[in-house]
Amino acid sequence: MLGSILENVRRTRPLVHCINNYVTANDCAMIVLACGASPIMADEPEEAEEITARCRGLCLNTGTPDARRAASMLAAGKRANALGLPVVLDPVGAGASRFRTELVRTLLGGVRFAVIRGNVSEIRVLAAGTDAAGGVDADAAVTEGNLASLTAFAMEFARRTGAVAAMTGAIDVVTDGKTAYLVRNGHPEMRYVTGAGCQLSALTAAFAAANPERPLEAAAAAVCTMGLAGELAYRRMKPEDGSASYRNYIIDAVRNMTPERLEEGADYEMR
Amino acid sequence: MLGSILENVRRTRPLVHCINNYVTANDCAMIVLACGASPIMADEPEEAEEITARCRGLCLNTGTPDARRAASMLAAGKRANALGLPVVLDPVGAGASRFRTELVRTLLGGVRFAVIRGNVSEIRVLAAGTDAAGGVDADAAVTEGNLASLTAFAMEFARRTGAVAAMTGAIDVVTDGKTAYLVRNGHPEMRYVTGAGCQLSALTAAFAAANPERPLEAAAAAVCTMGLAGELAYRRMKPEDGSASYRNYIIDAVRNMTPERLEEGADYEMR
Amino acid sequence: MLGSILENVRRTRPLVHCINNYVTANDCAMIVLACGASPIMADEPEEAEEITARCRGLCLNTGTPDARRAASMLAAGKRANALGLPVVLDPVGAGASRFRTELVRTLLGGVRFAVIRGNVSEIRVLAAGTDAAGGVDADAAVTEGNLASLTAFAMEFARRTGAVAAMTGAIDVVTDGKTAYLVRNGHPEMRYVTGAGCQLSALTAAFAAANPERPLEAAAAAVCTMGLAGELAYRRMKPEDGSASYRNYIIDAVRNMTPERLEEGADYEMR
Repeated sequence: MLGSILENVRRTRPLVHCINNYVTANDCAMIVLACGASPIMADEPEEAEEITARCRGLCLNTGTPDARRAASMLAAGKRANALGLPVVLDPVGAGASRFRTELVRTLLGGVRFAVIRGNVSEIRVLAAGTDAAGGVDADAAVTEGNLASLTAFAMEFARRTGAVAAMTGAIDVVTDGKTAYLVRNGHPEMRYVTGAGCQLSALTAAFAAANPERPLEAAAAAVCTMGLAGELAYRRMKPEDGSASYRNYIIDAVRNMTPERLEEGADYEMR
Repeated sequence: MLGSILENVRRTRPLVHCINNYVTANDCAMIVLACGASPIMADEPEEAEEITARCRGLCLNTGTPDARRAASMLAAGKRANALGLPVVLDPVGAGASRFRTELVRTLLGGVRFAVIRGNVSEIRVLAAGTDAAGGVDADAAVTEGNLASLTAFAMEFARRTGAVAAMTGAIDVVTDGKTAYLVRNGHPEMRYVTGAGCQLSALTAAFAAANPERPLEAAAAAVCTMGLAGELAYRRMKPEDGSASYRNYIIDAVRNMTPERLEEGADYEMR
Repeated sequence: MLGSILENVRRTRPLVHCINNYVTANDCAMIVLACGASPIMADEPEEAEEITARCRGLCLNTGTPDARRAASMLAAGKRANALGLPVVLDPVGAGASRFRTELVRTLLGGVRFAVIRGNVSEIRVLAAGTDAAGGVDADAAVTEGNLASLTAFAMEFARRTGAVAAMTGAIDVVTDGKTAYLVRNGHPEMRYVTGAGCQLSALTAAFAAANPERPLEAAAAAVCTMGLAGELAYRRMKPEDGSASYRNYIIDAVRNMTPERLEEGADYEMR
């Protein structure tokens, strides 16, 4: 089933508007191309909405934020909503500064997201904006030990926001509040690749753009694709290879991913 | 003959000022270094003209545009004109938004370009600014079927603007309005490398900077070098390699290009 | 001894705030991760100080400068000083424009630096701000021939600024004004890697963040690590490899560096 999600990306080659931090913009563009979609990076308020209107999906990434990019994100997000295009939020660094936290809350208040992709800490900061009760440790990572409680948290967050939550860590939880995919693909070496999370968010936007009626499956397929690419890339590693070669191998693996390999390699259970 | 163009780059190591989008800036700097020249990236209006004045060439790339970068491009372009330095325009995304279209038209109105390097759609948007008649399909790619009409279009564009037109696609047309190089180097996999066009424009600026009296030959040599590098890089591809390794192999191939290899591998006809 | 510096980075995984140019930001983030530390890139004045306060070190890089980034650098630097965190300055392009020269002088006047890492020309521009006498050729590179006089110059600069000077070239001079490390690691191919100097500065910030009481040894260890990585990376080069593969191999080598390899491979003398 996840294979058909990728097939749709390859077949329709959707154009995806990315308002992305400048650190990982190149890798995000590369991975969008690698999966079969086409990226446009544009963050100027004078053109943001217009660019969005030419695209089939939008990815908002809050790394290296500034006032100009923030204004573009809000305007582009609203336009995408008006046009019925899926919008993905990557709340990079939510909680690291008041500026970022306010930015993600403004976005959450003004834009309906198809998917929100972040780590536990980031999702928790967003959740606190709509439910101050919280109760999840800000520094928690998803592990077998806390999987049940974090899954319940992610499902509740998804129900409140109306977005698919893709909460990633050692185990990834992807849920629309009713169904949850628990994904065990990936490799620990991925944390040495800067912007692996940003890349996943851009990939998710591409998958959602080609599958606008199925955001849950699109997000699950993107999470499995990225994790499986991380596994396949790690198998190529020679003794002298390190994180830079690994980064390239991951993008290579997405370029070479097929629906069949994705179906075979996806390691998830549904709850 | 094209080999001597590259030889001049290697011998004189010209400094090239690049006002570039942030997505592909690193790759553009890498390819300028790889060909033997030296890049300076600077986009702040307070220093743009001064940086240009220290250089031997200028490349203006309109990706991820904003008002600040636009002001720098215009000022730097005018300064380069005043100093007689070759200026290359890469009208990235011309036509994708009013902001970009107005920016490229402002640049075209205020700066004399040695070379304008873009795809058919982008060149057409620029041409419409000086000749609204148009008639070339905005979505057209250069193919054997429309080669004659697109060559005529590019030649007319070059005559009107006084710039060498480097209109790239499956076949590349490089012309000063009198002579046209039709270049068949390159590989389809290059479209999976984000910013391959940006890299070619930066390379063209380096080649023009080292050969200021021969912009047509400089542009043709850059187009052949990039395309040939794409071919050589593709021959290195192992089964597990994908677009990220390919991107590196292209830059590697430019670093290892020699005048002899360029002469041998350049695949063009003149009309 | 230098091995223990790296050991401390790996053991404590310090968070490092980088205000970096957009051209080399990704590589700088990659090398900070590769050495075992963790980067945060943030350049917005509204969050810069707050991000700094969450970190253990700060790196200020003046490439692609603008007014916004300049304000962030000054504010973040002052905050780091107030908190006792080590700050590294990379005065990229000092002397290339009045804007950059004034920026580095403002930073030098307002922030106490643990380490200043630049080439001879850049360090000279900074030195002229505090001692207009100068006397060192702006275009000089450190070579065996001028090593003694440039070492004396760097030591004097370190004494005046109170910062460790890391003046890099064919030979690197690292000094606190009393002791000097003369480092002969590195490879000429490194000049084809854009931002190799930026990467070294970010690495230095990571090393200083984990060893705040030993900025001289931290800078010397970072210089040796980067140079040794350049040597190890060069040994991996296959005939078709070029500067892009080389760039990846350098980061790979930092990821695979061990305290033992660093101790064995570091090629320096102390004066």
